[in-house]
Amino acid sequence: MNLRHWLPWLDWGRGYNKASAGQDGLAALIVTLMLVPQSLAYAMLAGLPPVMGLYASILPLLLYALFGSSRTLAVGPVAVVSLMTAAAIGPLFPAGSPSYISAAMLLAMMSGIILAGMALLRLGFLANFLSHPVISGFISASGILIAIGQAKHILGVSVPGEGLVQILPGLLQSLPDTHLPTLLIGSLTLLWLWWARSQLKPLLQRAGLAATMAGNLAKAGPVLAIVVAILCVTLLQLDQVGVRVVGNIPRGLPGFSLPTLDLALIVQLLPAAVLISLVGFVESVSVGQTLAAKRRERIQPDNELLGLGASNLGAAFSGGFPVTGGFARSVVNFDAGAQTPMAGIFTAMGIALSVMLLTPLLHNLPQTVLAATIIVAVLGLVDLGSLRRTWRYSRQDGAAQWITLLGVLLIGVEAGILLGVTLSLLLFLWRTSQPHMAVVGQVPGSEHFRNIERFAVMESPNVLSLRVDESLYFPNARFLEDRIGELVAARPQVRHVVLMCPGVNLIDASALDSLETIAERLKTAGVQLHLSEVKGPVMDQLKRSTFLDHFGGQVFISQYQALRTLAPALTLATRQQDDQSFLIQSLDGRRQA
Amino acid sequence: MNLRHWLPWLDWGRGYNKASAGQDGLAALIVTLMLVPQSLAYAMLAGLPPVMGLYASILPLLLYALFGSSRTLAVGPVAVVSLMTAAAIGPLFPAGSPSYISAAMLLAMMSGIILAGMALLRLGFLANFLSHPVISGFISASGILIAIGQAKHILGVSVPGEGLVQILPGLLQSLPDTHLPTLLIGSLTLLWLWWARSQLKPLLQRAGLAATMAGNLAKAGPVLAIVVAILCVTLLQLDQVGVRVVGNIPRGLPGFSLPTLDLALIVQLLPAAVLISLVGFVESVSVGQTLAAKRRERIQPDNELLGLGASNLGAAFSGGFPVTGGFARSVVNFDAGAQTPMAGIFTAMGIALSVMLLTPLLHNLPQTVLAATIIVAVLGLVDLGSLRRTWRYSRQDGAAQWITLLGVLLIGVEAGILLGVTLSLLLFLWRTSQPHMAVVGQVPGSEHFRNIERFAVMESPNVLSLRVDESLYFPNARFLEDRIGELVAARPQVRHVVLMCPGVNLIDASALDSLETIAERLKTAGVQLHLSEVKGPVMDQLKRSTFLDHFGGQVFISQYQALRTLAPALTLATRQQDDQSFLIQSLDGRRQA
Repeated sequence: MNLRHWLPWLDWGRGYNKASAGQDGLAALIVTLMLVPQSLAYAMLAGLPPVMGLYASILPLLLYALFGSSRTLAVGPVAVVSLMTAAAIGPLFPAGSPSYISAAMLLAMMSGIILAGMALLRLGFLANFLSHPVISGFISASGILIAIGQAKHILGVSVPGEGLVQILPGLLQSLPDTHLPTLLIGSLTLLWLWWARSQLKPLLQRAGLAATMAGNLAKAGPVLAIVVAILCVTLLQLDQVGVRVVGNIPRGLPGFSLPTLDLALIVQLLPAAVLISLVGFVESVSVGQTLAAKRRERIQPDNELLGLGASNLGAAFSGGFPVTGGFARSVVNFDAGAQTPMAGIFTAMGIALSVMLLTPLLHNLPQTVLAATIIVAVLGLVDLGSLRRTWRYSRQDGAAQWITLLGVLLIGVEAGILLGVTLSLLLFLWRTSQPHMAVVGQVPGSEHFRNIERFAVMESPNVLSLRVDESLYFPNARFLEDRIGELVAARPQVRHVVLMCPGVNLIDASALDSLETIAERLKTAGVQLHLSEVKGPVMDQLKRSTFLDHFGGQVFISQYQALRTLAPALTLATRQQDDQSFLIQSLDGRRQA
Repeated sequence: MNLRHWLPWLDWGRGYNKASAGQDGLAALIVTLMLVPQSLAYAMLAGLPPVMGLYASILPLLLYALFGSSRTLAVGPVAVVSLMTAAAIGPLFPAGSPSYISAAMLLAMMSGIILAGMALLRLGFLANFLSHPVISGFISASGILIAIGQAKHILGVSVPGEGLVQILPGLLQSLPDTHLPTLLIGSLTLLWLWWARSQLKPLLQRAGLAATMAGNLAKAGPVLAIVVAILCVTLLQLDQVGVRVVGNIPRGLPGFSLPTLDLALIVQLLPAAVLISLVGFVESVSVGQTLAAKRRERIQPDNELLGLGASNLGAAFSGGFPVTGGFARSVVNFDAGAQTPMAGIFTAMGIALSVMLLTPLLHNLPQTVLAATIIVAVLGLVDLGSLRRTWRYSRQDGAAQWITLLGVLLIGVEAGILLGVTLSLLLFLWRTSQPHMAVVGQVPGSEHFRNIERFAVMESPNVLSLRVDESLYFPNARFLEDRIGELVAARPQVRHVVLMCPGVNLIDASALDSLETIAERLKTAGVQLHLSEVKGPVMDQLKRSTFLDHFGGQVFISQYQALRTLAPALTLATRQQDDQSFLIQSLDGRRQA
């Protein structure tokens, strides 16, 4: 049972048959065609030799298939994580140097350990720190940053440095040095990819192909661009005139390797590793859930953590760099009909074959073509309209999104996301520290109690009924003290305060302290605290403290009961009269809702 | 109006009269008697020349009286903040050196700026980060740490280092070097102070004094110890035999001074300054609120921040160190009958007079007596029983308290409190990321809906009614996606999901995204999302997004309405029959509550 929980393939492997294998095989073929150029491109984006992108698409895919719970997620190098890798290691070592490569592998290992650790300790909730506006701002900014960073490859110039502030002026300065053949190839590729994204499938359909077939063929658009570009470079010997090409890619499978364990470097990379793990996990889980829901399947966040953790460890030990589940390739995998993670295993085999056989053919692939692939892929990530939408919906969320976007663009990848996370946590704490509370009164002729500011209700002058619409815990414990103090100070006649707790799911130790403080403070002012409508589990927990023994008040089953008990005793003068005579009609000057 | 908000003395100053002045004057006299030895002692605890304690008790008191909102709070050096000051500066400079002194003033200035900034930006809610278990664990640990740190003065030995791990072995090693006369004076003082704390007042009362008079006199117990000790040292020339005395204290008021602004040092001290500000604020506000409530007065957290900020700036510019509102002295001030902050102004004048006139008399005050004063004061802070109580009440809160206590004792003051804050925030996020949700069904014969696991209710097989008992925001947005996906995956017959939102006070941008994702995912699986019982303000906000236009479902005024609308349409076969025939009695196998 436990083993089946951690190894989902024990489930799907059982009923695996030829039909599934056929579908998985076709999906794997299409994903492989897509993944070969993408892997090379993202390795380049991460500042690494292109072959590492291929290495990162073999063992990680196999391991995810063993441990991951999504049936259609396609794992490998992705744009945002590659950018984060470059941002983390770039300032430490020269790109592509042995130390740089070793650090990238170390980063993958750390990320793998963090993710697997989160799985075993059930810490997946940590990903909640990343609110949607922060992620959206971060991804848009990453897209812009990556696209601008790749522009130098399209122009065929060298621009040193990281970040918008360094790259943009550098680009402008080096415009006169633009290498025209490179720019021509790059621009044509950009145009072709842009056009193929939306127009190729309809065209093929008009040419008489079935929709599925046309869709699958259209996905080979980037491959066509690569083949044509390689042919051009080879036939016209464009590398002789200065078009930079990928060059020699080592042939054969990666060997098993261990990243150098440098403690100082580990400490230095730790924040980046944590962020890469969290961002990668969030991206992967949201893709996985979307695809699973389409077939009414489920994914398990814990298994996803373990699957991604194993993938990253696999990447670390086979010459790769941090990986995660990618959006585009997973959708392609799903649309092409993948049924089980076996598609991922087939894809890994496809990439492995490519490394063994195809790499000599890729020698003449121009870097500008890879850059064009990246630019078209990442511009799809940029969603500036979301900034406007979020701002209109909520100023606070909008501010978090803007701060993250600007932080990533102007300060740096990690600083930007940390700023956003901090701001959204602060705003969350601020919001949650002021829970909704309402002074309530009795609806005439009923046992119901409603907000006195919204309804025409009756109150006793001696009893303050306060409904709390939130669990009581440390972020709002002080607010509770403040608010009750304020209300009682403003009502000199009050002798009893009844806290109505139907919305209280938890009272933590801080709130318990606050309740004790409140009861004591009220007592010194001649007022008694009571509770009403306390939920069962909360009552059980309160019984584990001494609060109920010494706070001096009662716990009423209902607010109505509380009023019936407390108010008559306080209004001896009118006790003989009608039961409701002590209540004041509070119609005047109050909004009716 | 605005000016009156920031300068509370414009209010109380208006009606100030001779009677108030008399009461404030008496209270000030008693607090001054208490504050002179305490100020010297806490300066020593902070590793500073004793006179700085007196300096920190003049200008800060005046400024608090101008800006603070508590009528009875007594500001000055306190034990915990002095310990934090020593912990922050101790590792950087030799105690008592000019750089050390300058850093302490800088710390006061930074703390003043942080507190005043929090006041102006209304960031007082940041203090909520410090949950009660963390504060309690921190204060107990501080008490233990301070008491053990002072033991060397009682023994008359030198023990270098900070923290339990360094001091305890050092103390044991130097036991043979104990200076007996010092130990004798220290122990006698300890015994006297300990006895006087509880026994002196009853004794004086039995001797015929009135309760108030006896109480006020009893508070002079420490002063008596000091006078006797000074007399003994002077008459017996004990300083000649090695009893360490306070020595020369400069006479006269402090001059205006500016701390050296060293940017690197500021960066280094920043975390300590933030923690000192927050801890000081929390301690001060809780004392202030407790005392205010006794007279049904209010304090304003923003004014408290400003008052404490001004106090610390005052300390920085007049040769002092970080200050805050102290518990013991404020209670003494309150009990002695202080009516307004004028008592604080009188106290400042009293301390100023002492600095000008009394300092020569304090030359022969033995350090061991001051250490005894500190030990008796801080042992009152240690509340180990609270560890047991909190642990019994809640494992999570108990863990936060233990971690803070052990962290402060074994690792360090700042590290311990940061550990505790981080842990309690993580636990909070974990709890809040799993809000209570219940699948609900209709109570037969009513329009009410209740949890199907607790009540015998009726459900439609096609409609899933889910009640959310929590606002929807980013920490729980993903949980919502998970939970709905899970529930729908387990119920293949479901065609409609109705999210019942009576407990939802807010839907932030993350939760809005999640709702859109959920609606879309459900749609691909042939299920439609609806909402019911959405509160007015939440509805208004939803209308500012496009969610309502394209999610495809309806927003029902009540869950009953939703069921009446959705369920008949789905059960065409039974539409002609009784209105409730489509509902399944779900009595079997369910717990009744």
